[in-house]
Amino acid sequence: MSQLLKVQNFTVSADGVAAGEEQSLEHPFGRAVDPGRLFTWAFHTASWPGRTEPGGSRGLDDYFTRDFSHNIGAEIMGRNKFSPQRGPWEDHNWRGWWGDEPPFHTPVFVLTHHPRPSFTLSDTTFHFVDGDPASVLEQAKEAAQGRDVRLGGGVSTIREFLDADLVDTLQVAVAPVTIGSGLRLWDSPDDLLDRFHRDVVPSPSGVTHHLFWRR
Amino acid sequence: MSQLLKVQNFTVSADGVAAGEEQSLEHPFGRAVDPGRLFTWAFHTASWPGRTEPGGSRGLDDYFTRDFSHNIGAEIMGRNKFSPQRGPWEDHNWRGWWGDEPPFHTPVFVLTHHPRPSFTLSDTTFHFVDGDPASVLEQAKEAAQGRDVRLGGGVSTIREFLDADLVDTLQVAVAPVTIGSGLRLWDSPDDLLDRFHRDVVPSPSGVTHHLFWRR
Repeated sequence: MSQLLKVQNFTVSADGVAAGEEQSLEHPFGRAVDPGRLFTWAFHTASWPGRTEPGGSRGLDDYFTRDFSHNIGAEIMGRNKFSPQRGPWEDHNWRGWWGDEPPFHTPVFVLTHHPRPSFTLSDTTFHFVDGDPASVLEQAKEAAQGRDVRLGGGVSTIREFLDADLVDTLQVAVAPVTIGSGLRLWDSPDDLLDRFHRDVVPSPSGVTHHLFWRR
Repeated sequence: MSQLLKVQNFTVSADGVAAGEEQSLEHPFGRAVDPGRLFTWAFHTASWPGRTEPGGSRGLDDYFTRDFSHNIGAEIMGRNKFSPQRGPWEDHNWRGWWGDEPPFHTPVFVLTHHPRPSFTLSDTTFHFVDGDPASVLEQAKEAAQGRDVRLGGGVSTIREFLDADLVDTLQVAVAPVTIGSGLRLWDSPDDLLDRFHRDVVPSPSGVTHHLFWRR
């Protein structure tokens, strides 16, 4: 079985926006975007990685949060998912949004033109890599040791790997909110149908999951 | 996190039948039931354990076949799922339906009043146990070493554990075929709503997945 490159639990608004404008430390998804409105579907599941209390739903949405780490051996993410800083690293104190126990538990490859030494937090090691999508994917697959690779986002990173035709599956949750301006994954989920099969699955929680796999 | 008892990928007809009458070596699901009509939804997925060719769908149904073994550390099954024989074992040559590589990869506890020595095929070990549901579940949880336990069926076994209120989650695929007579899981999927939450999820493949979790 070959290793897949998978987009998992990626959430966009009804108008395709995953992050608004003016991303910052205070507004990691941009000034106009309240993450709670996008991610409610995930927060209420039993398997959401950020859950600290027992309980949570074990219905449809839980299959998606439960699958987030299933057979994943590495993640690739964009610099803008890792950090609110832009341009050269001012210092190396920023170690991601996720505290001392990041939810990845694998090597993570952060795309950046600005070199920085790797570091490890708990069982997650962050590497900072420059290169075209195909060569970064090759590095990540080797680190994943036979398991699949998650493409973590954001939008620009996913678009870049889609343009290079390197993505095998996508699970995108479309939330019933409209954001207007911002970073857009697509004009319409139908944009990908030339290259992907798709199941459209409405969830009782209000989001609609779009599940794509290569033709 | 406590260990769950889970029914996974269990398939019934629109009228709730999982196996017809007159089960035998030639007709493991009973004379009137063609397994192909019930299980098409699973056979076409990429993650179906019986798949030998590459390919297969990676949409909604694949989340369920992919989840079949996720964090499962043991299975409990009824004697009638293990074997077409009834009553005392005539000999020990029958080693299950699944050939030399059973799809379980964990200890399996077969409920029977008729003792028989344990045996191992590849990475699956079959144990033959007599006892009430709670004590068998206790054995299976210990063998699962912190992971969850799958309740494999058939219908009588699932009913027995439901009656003892030991089941935590069920994923039941309802296929768009009518069988008429046979072993029935329920009169209606609504029967379980007094004790379980439920998501009803129609699949593009034609089955409807009913996902139950404890209230």
